[in-house]
Amino acid sequence: MFKILRVNMTDLSVKAKDIPAAYEGLGGRGLTSAIVAGEVEPTCSPIGSNNKLIFAPGLLGGTNCANSGRISVGAKSPLTGGIKEANSGGQAGQYLARLGIAAIVVEGLPQNGKLYKLWVGKDRYELSPADNLRGLGNYAVVDKLKGEFGDRAGFVSIGQAGEWKLAGASVAFTDREGRPTRHAGRGGLGAVMGSKGLKAVIVDPSGGELAPIVDKEAFNQAAKRFTKALQEYPVTGQGLPTYGTDILINILNEAGGLPTRNFSSGRFEGADKVGGETLNKITVERKGNPTHGCMAGCVIRCSGIFVDKKGEYVSKWPEYETVWAWGPNCGIDDLDAIARIDRACDDIGVDTIEMGNSVAVAMEGGVKAFGDAAGAEELIAEVGKGSPLGRILGSGAGVVGKAFGVRRVPVVKNQALPAYDPRAVKGVGVTFATSPMGADHTAGYAVATNIMNVGGKLDPLKSEGQAKLSSDLQVATAFIDTAGLCLFVAFPVLDVPDAFAAIVDMVNAKYGLTLTGDDIGALGKRVLSMERDFNRRAGFTSADDRLPEFFKTEKLPPHNTVFDVSDADLDSVLNFD
Amino acid sequence: MFKILRVNMTDLSVKAKDIPAAYEGLGGRGLTSAIVAGEVEPTCSPIGSNNKLIFAPGLLGGTNCANSGRISVGAKSPLTGGIKEANSGGQAGQYLARLGIAAIVVEGLPQNGKLYKLWVGKDRYELSPADNLRGLGNYAVVDKLKGEFGDRAGFVSIGQAGEWKLAGASVAFTDREGRPTRHAGRGGLGAVMGSKGLKAVIVDPSGGELAPIVDKEAFNQAAKRFTKALQEYPVTGQGLPTYGTDILINILNEAGGLPTRNFSSGRFEGADKVGGETLNKITVERKGNPTHGCMAGCVIRCSGIFVDKKGEYVSKWPEYETVWAWGPNCGIDDLDAIARIDRACDDIGVDTIEMGNSVAVAMEGGVKAFGDAAGAEELIAEVGKGSPLGRILGSGAGVVGKAFGVRRVPVVKNQALPAYDPRAVKGVGVTFATSPMGADHTAGYAVATNIMNVGGKLDPLKSEGQAKLSSDLQVATAFIDTAGLCLFVAFPVLDVPDAFAAIVDMVNAKYGLTLTGDDIGALGKRVLSMERDFNRRAGFTSADDRLPEFFKTEKLPPHNTVFDVSDADLDSVLNFD
Repeated sequence: MFKILRVNMTDLSVKAKDIPAAYEGLGGRGLTSAIVAGEVEPTCSPIGSNNKLIFAPGLLGGTNCANSGRISVGAKSPLTGGIKEANSGGQAGQYLARLGIAAIVVEGLPQNGKLYKLWVGKDRYELSPADNLRGLGNYAVVDKLKGEFGDRAGFVSIGQAGEWKLAGASVAFTDREGRPTRHAGRGGLGAVMGSKGLKAVIVDPSGGELAPIVDKEAFNQAAKRFTKALQEYPVTGQGLPTYGTDILINILNEAGGLPTRNFSSGRFEGADKVGGETLNKITVERKGNPTHGCMAGCVIRCSGIFVDKKGEYVSKWPEYETVWAWGPNCGIDDLDAIARIDRACDDIGVDTIEMGNSVAVAMEGGVKAFGDAAGAEELIAEVGKGSPLGRILGSGAGVVGKAFGVRRVPVVKNQALPAYDPRAVKGVGVTFATSPMGADHTAGYAVATNIMNVGGKLDPLKSEGQAKLSSDLQVATAFIDTAGLCLFVAFPVLDVPDAFAAIVDMVNAKYGLTLTGDDIGALGKRVLSMERDFNRRAGFTSADDRLPEFFKTEKLPPHNTVFDVSDADLDSVLNFD
Repeated sequence: MFKILRVNMTDLSVKAKDIPAAYEGLGGRGLTSAIVAGEVEPTCSPIGSNNKLIFAPGLLGGTNCANSGRISVGAKSPLTGGIKEANSGGQAGQYLARLGIAAIVVEGLPQNGKLYKLWVGKDRYELSPADNLRGLGNYAVVDKLKGEFGDRAGFVSIGQAGEWKLAGASVAFTDREGRPTRHAGRGGLGAVMGSKGLKAVIVDPSGGELAPIVDKEAFNQAAKRFTKALQEYPVTGQGLPTYGTDILINILNEAGGLPTRNFSSGRFEGADKVGGETLNKITVERKGNPTHGCMAGCVIRCSGIFVDKKGEYVSKWPEYETVWAWGPNCGIDDLDAIARIDRACDDIGVDTIEMGNSVAVAMEGGVKAFGDAAGAEELIAEVGKGSPLGRILGSGAGVVGKAFGVRRVPVVKNQALPAYDPRAVKGVGVTFATSPMGADHTAGYAVATNIMNVGGKLDPLKSEGQAKLSSDLQVATAFIDTAGLCLFVAFPVLDVPDAFAAIVDMVNAKYGLTLTGDDIGALGKRVLSMERDFNRRAGFTSADDRLPEFFKTEKLPPHNTVFDVSDADLDSVLNFD
């Protein structure tokens, strides 16, 4: 049966425990948020002994359901001060689920300032010293661990930024090639891992097996329908596999919603040079790989392999948000530089979105000029060195704004905005404002409906209806994150009724349940309400569910619009009473 | 009649306007807080065009009442994000009052990034370019301005930190010798002034006259009683004039409440080397001046002149909180180094309390060793250079904690704690937790009753009664700050009934009123309630009225106590309904 691993960094014990009744029926984000909300004092120090770091595969993890291998990481966030869940592809999610582990909960703080690694196998767990990994980036960490544990394991690690407890620090997960390219990036979860002295987790899948399923026949039929929907839907069947998420650059640029030079314009003259079409073209020319899955069981495979002009591996394909953060947002149009920066971020272990915003705000503060690609590479190198400048940048855009006296700082709950200007894509602006996670496009991806006409149409420049759209999407997403599904399944799910039905059927077949679509919605609302309640107890109010002032006062070219969704609408989004 | 000067930095206009009815009967903090609460959008950017910076002398300003020349500065704070009032001695308060100016309200932002200075004389006001002052510290600014305006004016200015909009930036006021040694230090008000491009204000007292008084005879009699009380009371009549506020070092050390090495102990082995007795001794030996008033009309004169071994001027006597912040709190026992740092802080224009905490937290983060006086001098020099490390430190202890991954960060509402450990002086701990200003000893100085048995006795180590004590003191202080009185008048006021009666009599005589003691209390409550309401609208909750976690979990030597005043008690402090 599934267990929760309790890892106590104070007495260095690891204990497998039964799942308490309060957590039953939860996985992924639902489980991490329930544990944070239930066990963490909301006003505690995020890097203190009373915070907890939780890893949890989703409800459908460990099965042969397509794209079900996401892993959620949760804690009180050092960046936002609120609850945080960030999820990632890679190997660890499926491996943990197949080892019968519903969650790893890391508690306490080591007394001696030493580093540790946690090895997790079939019914065996071991915490051991890892001071030999101190100061290493994720690539070197994984290389060393492969030497010790072989290359079949899944590796979870932090780079230098996590050790330094920087609020921009991520948690890295190895992909199918064993490279630390997949990250739970947002909210500084790597700093929580670093505060606990946990440098790495090694998940050995040996002896693991498919998760138990109550009605295998029903499950397999539903899984086939689900795969078919993913493969037949144009976005997930053709667009993403060919151009990656970076296909969005030209789309958002066309829509006038591509934030440029620290959110001062919605169009970037160099967009095409960094868009998915160019990424695909140079990857094919250089004999890289434009179609690659970030985790086993992925049928979308939006993540390519970026190679340099000599055909040497640089990084995985940078995601759209990464290309945006370091490209248009910094006025940079050089994909090679962006890919090198992506690699550097993965190695140091920092969130590419937060760091790109940090650098753009620093550019506005005069540290470098917009468009200075070499300067941007210098700045990410500073983060890796841990210099004072690197510490500022690594602490996120909010701190950069303070240090350099910049007024235009695009953060909500102190988390930097992703790659969509809320003045031109107002639905996702509502999500940025109201998500318990801080500004997070994945929390309720209204871009789909606003820009891509997925799940209906809603004019992105109008304020009407955006609150309802964001609310519905945030509820659905809370469930998708709880199931451990890749968010991109939402594209067919929003448009193809049977795709959603197939997911419900799989959950029912796996657990022997008879949930309806309404039950799924109720589960999503339950997760969001737990998160909101934690934030409320941590001191958040409706004043925290707002965009920064400048989005309401500065008109964004080319549409010359401001963000004008009313406060009342914003307050309605997650008010389910 | 009294006017409000409205200085618009956007169109560079200066207009004298009548006082609106809503602000009548208010001065000092009461007036700055009323304007901030009434006119500033609580969620605005503190360094944006919608914040306002207000200077206001007190209700008794411009009279011959002893110690009535304080000037309040108010705005939304870049440090706390809440309402802020900080007040200062120096010349400007009395001069403005004698010019008939109830408040200067600085609004908007210049369009061109240029610097300006405001000249204020009798019924004449002029805003003019000040780019020649760019990059100068306060001492150099004042020297230049004296060359242009003579040395009889009162000067208000910001140093480099204010220009850079650092959250630790102060606003400097010249003392009677025309030196920029008196500061509205707390909460980053210098950054607001810098954001508005206002480098300096010159107040020319020529033609000014004593404030009009309805019943001069009654006023003069009450003023004499008040002066007598100040002179006869031991603390204000003997202790402060002889040893300065630094007399508290040995007292707090003896009480076990002198925070040492970033709040890790309540006793410092080098306390006596930096205490007021030593300060007096070396000042007398070096032929400095141990008894000096920071403003005209002061009968306490707690501020000496610190000279070096050659007898050369270094700084005014560093206040107790300054000596503590850079001394015991950094493990430093060198008064000469501390005085040089005090001078550097005054010149750069930063709050000595916030900066000392920044450096202590940086020391805990490994940037320098505790006790490294030369290292501390290097760090304040970094702030003056505006290097990345200086930017971190200048942004306050909260940002330092983030940049260097330090868990023990002594801030409330992101403002660093002053020189009293709340675990050993629990009454002032209640004030730190609950004041709308963030951690601020001047907001309700329970040290008086807890440690000095002024206004009664209350065991500083017990939690019982501290909430009531802090509440009463915060109400009284809100009035004292509104009157423009030096806080030290509270010592006799708390113990000598006629001292308080004399203040009430002066207010009544000046304005032709018949206020009672209860009315004074109601005014204090009204000011606090306005401030609390602003903070609530800015997003503050009771979770913000708490001390950092470590005060509740780490025992403080030598008493080995934690801060254990209950949340319910804290929530009662400013709940006047």
